[in-house]
Amino acid sequence: MKKLKRNIVDNLDFRSADFEDTSKAMYELAKELFPICRSITGQGFRDSLQILNDALGGGILQIHSIQSGTKVFDWIVPPEWHIKDAFIITPDGEKICDFKKHNLHILNYSEGIDKEIELDELQNHLYSLEEKPDAIPYITSYYKKRWGFCITHNERKKLKQGKYRVFIDAKHDENGVLNYADFIIPSTQNSKEEILISTYLCHPSMANNELSGPIVAIYLAKWLLNLKERKYNYRFVIVPETIGSIVYIHKHLKHLQKHTKAGFVLSCLGDDNTYSLVHSPSQNTLSDKVALHTLKNKENFKEYSFLDRGSDERQYNAPLVNLGVVGICRSKYAKYQEYHTSKDNLNFISPKGLMGGLKTMQEIILNVEINEIYENTIFCEPNLGKRGLYHTLNASINRPPLTANILAYCDGKNDIIDIAEILNMQAYEFKDLLEEILEFKLLKTSNMKT
Amino acid sequence: MKKLKRNIVDNLDFRSADFEDTSKAMYELAKELFPICRSITGQGFRDSLQILNDALGGGILQIHSIQSGTKVFDWIVPPEWHIKDAFIITPDGEKICDFKKHNLHILNYSEGIDKEIELDELQNHLYSLEEKPDAIPYITSYYKKRWGFCITHNERKKLKQGKYRVFIDAKHDENGVLNYADFIIPSTQNSKEEILISTYLCHPSMANNELSGPIVAIYLAKWLLNLKERKYNYRFVIVPETIGSIVYIHKHLKHLQKHTKAGFVLSCLGDDNTYSLVHSPSQNTLSDKVALHTLKNKENFKEYSFLDRGSDERQYNAPLVNLGVVGICRSKYAKYQEYHTSKDNLNFISPKGLMGGLKTMQEIILNVEINEIYENTIFCEPNLGKRGLYHTLNASINRPPLTANILAYCDGKNDIIDIAEILNMQAYEFKDLLEEILEFKLLKTSNMKT
Amino acid sequence: MKKLKRNIVDNLDFRSADFEDTSKAMYELAKELFPICRSITGQGFRDSLQILNDALGGGILQIHSIQSGTKVFDWIVPPEWHIKDAFIITPDGEKICDFKKHNLHILNYSEGIDKEIELDELQNHLYSLEEKPDAIPYITSYYKKRWGFCITHNERKKLKQGKYRVFIDAKHDENGVLNYADFIIPSTQNSKEEILISTYLCHPSMANNELSGPIVAIYLAKWLLNLKERKYNYRFVIVPETIGSIVYIHKHLKHLQKHTKAGFVLSCLGDDNTYSLVHSPSQNTLSDKVALHTLKNKENFKEYSFLDRGSDERQYNAPLVNLGVVGICRSKYAKYQEYHTSKDNLNFISPKGLMGGLKTMQEIILNVEINEIYENTIFCEPNLGKRGLYHTLNASINRPPLTANILAYCDGKNDIIDIAEILNMQAYEFKDLLEEILEFKLLKTSNMKT
Repeated sequence: MKKLKRNIVDNLDFRSADFEDTSKAMYELAKELFPICRSITGQGFRDSLQILNDALGGGILQIHSIQSGTKVFDWIVPPEWHIKDAFIITPDGEKICDFKKHNLHILNYSEGIDKEIELDELQNHLYSLEEKPDAIPYITSYYKKRWGFCITHNERKKLKQGKYRVFIDAKHDENGVLNYADFIIPSTQNSKEEILISTYLCHPSMANNELSGPIVAIYLAKWLLNLKERKYNYRFVIVPETIGSIVYIHKHLKHLQKHTKAGFVLSCLGDDNTYSLVHSPSQNTLSDKVALHTLKNKENFKEYSFLDRGSDERQYNAPLVNLGVVGICRSKYAKYQEYHTSKDNLNFISPKGLMGGLKTMQEIILNVEINEIYENTIFCEPNLGKRGLYHTLNASINRPPLTANILAYCDGKNDIIDIAEILNMQAYEFKDLLEEILEFKLLKTSNMKT
Repeated sequence: MKKLKRNIVDNLDFRSADFEDTSKAMYELAKELFPICRSITGQGFRDSLQILNDALGGGILQIHSIQSGTKVFDWIVPPEWHIKDAFIITPDGEKICDFKKHNLHILNYSEGIDKEIELDELQNHLYSLEEKPDAIPYITSYYKKRWGFCITHNERKKLKQGKYRVFIDAKHDENGVLNYADFIIPSTQNSKEEILISTYLCHPSMANNELSGPIVAIYLAKWLLNLKERKYNYRFVIVPETIGSIVYIHKHLKHLQKHTKAGFVLSCLGDDNTYSLVHSPSQNTLSDKVALHTLKNKENFKEYSFLDRGSDERQYNAPLVNLGVVGICRSKYAKYQEYHTSKDNLNFISPKGLMGGLKTMQEIILNVEINEIYENTIFCEPNLGKRGLYHTLNASINRPPLTANILAYCDGKNDIIDIAEILNMQAYEFKDLLEEILEFKLLKTSNMKT
Repeated sequence: MKKLKRNIVDNLDFRSADFEDTSKAMYELAKELFPICRSITGQGFRDSLQILNDALGGGILQIHSIQSGTKVFDWIVPPEWHIKDAFIITPDGEKICDFKKHNLHILNYSEGIDKEIELDELQNHLYSLEEKPDAIPYITSYYKKRWGFCITHNERKKLKQGKYRVFIDAKHDENGVLNYADFIIPSTQNSKEEILISTYLCHPSMANNELSGPIVAIYLAKWLLNLKERKYNYRFVIVPETIGSIVYIHKHLKHLQKHTKAGFVLSCLGDDNTYSLVHSPSQNTLSDKVALHTLKNKENFKEYSFLDRGSDERQYNAPLVNLGVVGICRSKYAKYQEYHTSKDNLNFISPKGLMGGLKTMQEIILNVEINEIYENTIFCEPNLGKRGLYHTLNASINRPPLTANILAYCDGKNDIIDIAEILNMQAYEFKDLLEEILEFKLLKTSNMKT
């Protein structure tokens, strides 16, 4: 036990990572993924999974598919979307809304079309944001067939009367598939318990939402893979948002309900601004506890209730699923100006921003790994002085040493996070001291569960 | 189930009531009842019950009597009080403290007397309020035999030395009775559970305290009687304060303890000022919860602990009775200047004030009727778009729709009031949405009790 | 029951004590004990116990001893320390650090020595406080053998180069003993439950810390002995700090865990400043509750968490001991300037200060003695008027009388301290009223435990 604890903690020490290299590498990965037109199904999503697989070193990501038309709980897996090109030719012969210039121009999941129409009719198929006139909005219509283009409001206002050619080379394949990926980084202690890390990859060319989540997830996995010891199994899930997590839960519900110890949905983790926590409905799961413990002392931190949910925590926390997961973000989706527009680009994220997201997730994992309920082995206070854990010359009492405080609160009820809260520290900061205490057998693991 | 829910809610909609007519009718009833000299026993109380019975349409109020001298728990039902006339003749021959001009002039439950006495002796039998010199106070002496008059302090100061004739034509009939009334408006769903609505009618010519309580109770009953569906039985109790509720509890204790789901003591509900809640001792019964939920967003609202109790909630909440009821008032008894004096007259209440009291009670009942614990029927979020419950075009996520929020929090533990609190709404505002959700069978009733 | 209650409360009334005499006597006792050189073992400790025994009237204190070398949990009882003399002769022939002038000059538990050394070597054995240059510090080295002197920093700075004779006539007797004392003041009601009062006597010539604790304990015992009735047994424990309480717990663990109802460690109770409470780790034991209830309305009061612990509450609250005791102080150890120096002298404490400490402990005991869970015997409110407990003439309701409030909240769950908190009073202030209520059999003791 003592040996093992030491190994875990040595290897969990994120402070030894080469920050600069990692942060640059994450940003480079964002640049590679950015131009691809993704959706909840289709080639762009598959290509993106492949790039993530390569970034992880290959052979780790398990890519799965499910047939279009399959019933998953209350939903039907939609036909696969193929998009090749899309544009509009104005009466003046100008090509606008060119999919090849920016894939946000296509209404995501649009039907194909090729015809000439008047401006008035075209207007019914254009989407723009009056309040953000130079941004192309991100709009989707997955479950109702429509065709359409997204355009900046400034450009839309310039459109004159006349005939417009609208061309969309897209189709919906009823015999297609929906793809998703997962992988498990196993516990080194034969634990059955899992930490769920879920993120989504279905958004086209936007950077914070949502390339940052998968990128941080991949680098988090790389770090976990390098640890010699892991208390828990780590289940990574990369899906198209909503339908993908529903597909995943449909397939793994019993397993997830039996083994998930804590879970985190990663989203919008690449900017330089605040950190955000989206609570589970009850706000009192282990996920809530460890995330709040980790995040609340960040310089900028915002706490959101489940009313502000928006990503796959919606599915993982649905009442009959009830995995008690939380969402972890920097600037939370729907709370920043650039959100769901062409302004959420590679300038909105940064190497430092992504690194902050990664570090936060590492801290959360350090805190969840070290968390345990301990019991004292010795009646009354142990003699710390004889073990070299305290001075032998007593001058004046100030606060008792940290070792004594940890022992004093290890009553078989408080877990390490509770004690860290009492002592106004991060749980993972106890690691050296806890090792020493366990080496001296002053504490033993309780049968109580965190 | 769906059908039934719809009916309930349709009919509970108080907004369809004809406000103007109802508020005038309530005030007219107050005018009719005002002149009668009531006490905890006697003809005035019986006459007043009869007027209420008529106002309710006749044949609904059950009028009961209990023999004077009967032991009820720690108390003895007092002899019945008969009062015909009372006055004082001054040395100048002037008639003052004339019962026929204002029945507050008689010390309530006074013995009879007819003699000439000096002013000094008379002073021992006069009650006035130095701090409210132009108000006749309301004073009672039910359990100790006294004679006396109540008088404005201004008038008292003018009294000169000399012989005064004091005349009170009153007697205490040991073979009399104490009267009280009740009626049940039955559940349309064969529920055994009851909502207790209790009020008291023993005060002589005062308007807010206490004609407003019985009047609001009668009009609340009229509204309930017109509903096609009621989840609960409604038990209305109209008693003389304190001794009457003790008599009632003595007779019905086991039944009340077994079936009372929530209970409300109605008092002082006719003025235009604040709304008040007098909590149960524990402050955590369903009555506390629904009343606080309903009242706390009123523009003027005051919350009182059980330390500020004063009416029949004292008996219903006595530790061995423990029905967990709350008191509902506008300006709470003992907290307004006019309280227990001749100033609490028909000018202190208003049609609008009484209507506000009635509406508040209707809202409380709407909230208690709609309150239920539900469970989801579908794993993960249901597809609301395909049922027309949500748009199919996703632009940017703001807060999820109300339907999704209700579903998300229906976890088999939260009741509808809990969820309304989370969403900062009144529970009854969910009615249309809940119907729709139940129609689509997205929720089912839980076995858990509210 | 009624008789007995009356007796208890009559006799618990500390207000009848002769304050002036008691406060002077406590201060005189401090003066007698002050000059003695105490440590955790040795003659000084034994002599001090004897003085306390005499102060208590003789024959009550039980003085115990345990052999040096005995293993007690994680500790070994140290050899007994004998100190006869100690001083330094300067190169000028001046005698400094003279033990006979102030026993703080000797490093407590110092080894013996007799040799001439250079100043540089001497400096390694001198202890002074730069930030309090005219105070001799109190330093101990119980578990590591050292020799040394404590000196004011001002005096230390004047030392010149040259040969110094250091002389310490001290030895450690491996065949010695450690002493401690206890006594039980028995319940007059055959209760098995105990209130633990623990204090420590191992400090040499300092007044607040720690002569005040034992002195207040002795006078508290004298007061308790004079009571005709006591609900609980009172276990008084006077030990050397830390090792003494460990010895005591080692011997009595099972008994203490079975019978301790509440416990208080008395320390630093003789100054005129604030009152302090050092909570148990959980902060929710009966000891925490009664102490907070008693102290929180003091003009000066400071509440400390268990993180600020420092005395024997460390041992009594160790997780596997878990007696839930609290520390009671005026200016808390380690929180006043004079602490652990020669400045903590007879001028720092006062007769009034000691009396304040004693009164506080008396109030705590009054509150714990009166605390009980009661149940009503009567359904609905009892008729207080007929028993002369309330007026029979009702003018206007203000707050119900105290008797009615006590009855209303005696629901078999609230204890008397809970009800006193609701009513913003001290529990012991209910004594007359409670007697009256019990005399009328309106309440009975519940089976629920406080």
